[in-house]
Amino acid sequence: GLAAPALAQGSNPQVRWRLASSYPRSLGTIYGAMDMAVKRVGELTEGRFNISLHPAGELVPALQVLDATQSGSVEAGHSASYFYIGKDPAYGFGTALPFGLNARGQNAWLYEGGGQALLDEFYASQGVLAMPIGNTGAQMAGWYRKEIKTVEDLKGLKFRVGGLAGMVLAKLGVVAQQLAAGDLYVALEKGTLDAAEFVGPYDDEKLGLHKVAKYYYYPGWWEGSATLGLFINPKAWAALPAHYQAALRTAAAEANQWCTAKYDVENPRAMGRLVAGGAVLRAFPRPVLDASYKAAEALYAELSDKSPAFKKIFEHWVKFRNEQVLWQQFCEGPFDNYMAAASRRK
Amino acid sequence: GLAAPALAQGSNPQVRWRLASSYPRSLGTIYGAMDMAVKRVGELTEGRFNISLHPAGELVPALQVLDATQSGSVEAGHSASYFYIGKDPAYGFGTALPFGLNARGQNAWLYEGGGQALLDEFYASQGVLAMPIGNTGAQMAGWYRKEIKTVEDLKGLKFRVGGLAGMVLAKLGVVAQQLAAGDLYVALEKGTLDAAEFVGPYDDEKLGLHKVAKYYYYPGWWEGSATLGLFINPKAWAALPAHYQAALRTAAAEANQWCTAKYDVENPRAMGRLVAGGAVLRAFPRPVLDASYKAAEALYAELSDKSPAFKKIFEHWVKFRNEQVLWQQFCEGPFDNYMAAASRRK
Repeated sequence: GLAAPALAQGSNPQVRWRLASSYPRSLGTIYGAMDMAVKRVGELTEGRFNISLHPAGELVPALQVLDATQSGSVEAGHSASYFYIGKDPAYGFGTALPFGLNARGQNAWLYEGGGQALLDEFYASQGVLAMPIGNTGAQMAGWYRKEIKTVEDLKGLKFRVGGLAGMVLAKLGVVAQQLAAGDLYVALEKGTLDAAEFVGPYDDEKLGLHKVAKYYYYPGWWEGSATLGLFINPKAWAALPAHYQAALRTAAAEANQWCTAKYDVENPRAMGRLVAGGAVLRAFPRPVLDASYKAAEALYAELSDKSPAFKKIFEHWVKFRNEQVLWQQFCEGPFDNYMAAASRRK
Repeated sequence: GLAAPALAQGSNPQVRWRLASSYPRSLGTIYGAMDMAVKRVGELTEGRFNISLHPAGELVPALQVLDATQSGSVEAGHSASYFYIGKDPAYGFGTALPFGLNARGQNAWLYEGGGQALLDEFYASQGVLAMPIGNTGAQMAGWYRKEIKTVEDLKGLKFRVGGLAGMVLAKLGVVAQQLAAGDLYVALEKGTLDAAEFVGPYDDEKLGLHKVAKYYYYPGWWEGSATLGLFINPKAWAALPAHYQAALRTAAAEANQWCTAKYDVENPRAMGRLVAGGAVLRAFPRPVLDASYKAAEALYAELSDKSPAFKKIFEHWVKFRNEQVLWQQFCEGPFDNYMAAASRRK
């Protein structure tokens, strides 16, 4: 149930919340960021604002976290907004759109570029509040039993990929499949699946997919970054004293940054182990990327026709994305590319 | 003076700190991040932990902020650690080293990669505590009256550039100069200076340098990112209740992320205005970058001979940097480069 109103209990009331996650404990970065924020809120309030975090399935099934938060059966949820694009495609922006913003751009859009205000308005219409609580950075494009050499190779490809990426790839003939992460190994081994994407080296390594689908493709253009979300029931939020609200907001921002830092530490080392274990790295050929980009643009036009919320946010988002991509070519890009060139020279 | 011990006043004592900044209010990103953190600490503690922030010169001169914090004449300071490499070159790591980590890498190193623990040890030996409080992202390489077409063009160049970058460039014949930001316009106009670097479009625009030195070079290889620092007197820190310490630490992390977001929103727009106002963008030629990289490596060998603290931290840092640069070539780099290519196609 919802927390009791705080004011009756003085300025530092004891508040207990239940927080349901869509993720398991084993995801040390994604789940770890949520766990870090919950603990920090405890520290900031001397234990008076107590949030108990529950992994997927413990209180509610993974994909019902948003609904449970909206209804108030839990005060808060930890999930990815794009799991809910079936309700409205505008849920995509809170996590990632194909050929979207990288982690720097996504943070800039959300925290200072006007993105969060647009999302707040949309989420209010959905009866929920949300804030960022972790970003994965650019993801890998997953594991493939055979090489993808041409756009033709995508036709009929039985690929475990979800959401907007699946909708883009369907336009190129991919047969998008939804399977739980734990079922991917067997499906790839048996050949009922040709390919599967998950996150990146650190998370993928735990699934062992390199043993059954050795080609590891990049870049994962559908997730140039992906933001995880902390969803909050508006009544539970309104019942908090202002300094407890500040504690949750500040702890969430800290965890958002930490999540990417943790990935950036762990991914290179996991990648080294995967390659040593037989993974073969492959870049998507340029024509495959171009065809995918064109298909994504067609999808965005369709979704804008279908959803007024998507259309409104997309117009702001795409302008912002294009500014970021242009700027990057005169600063971050040349620096990063030179560092890469210098490292290859040795 | 130092804050009175907190425990005698109950668990939420009134604490007042004075915080001296090396920066003026006009730097909306750098100063703005410190200001944001101070206000957040107030919110988190219902105004009980009150930190008054003072711009450069109000309490102490800009470059004496560290000393004032060490001595306890202020409880805390806001500065850039690399201003103090004259004390020990190991002060460089807290901000930036030439050909160093980009913002993602720097955050990863500091927050999760073991970097902060190494810096903590070094700072303890210096009688101070420090935490990150903002990152500029990759900087531009500044404003030049004439083009830099060859390594020879660096010889005798009167360039306003400081710290380790100045030491690297001195090896290539640059005459490194130190001038206050406010004096650069006149010096470039008169020709007593040939070139000057500051930060990036958003900060540079305020100085108007494009009117007197139109070539705007990139990448600023000496600051692939630059971390600002919150310095704290260890006795003042120890006197804080644990939840006030947590408030300061969490607010600083939030501000660190926000600073980069603010730059990423403002820089592209400022760049557009600068180019419209006559700035001419130029990339350093590859041989200039290669010669600079080689000179930086030579400098790092010298500094490692000179300072045991530099040597210890450098060994950890360079290994971490190389891991980051390698990983980036299979994920962030190909994604960002494809987005750039797609934008140029239009």
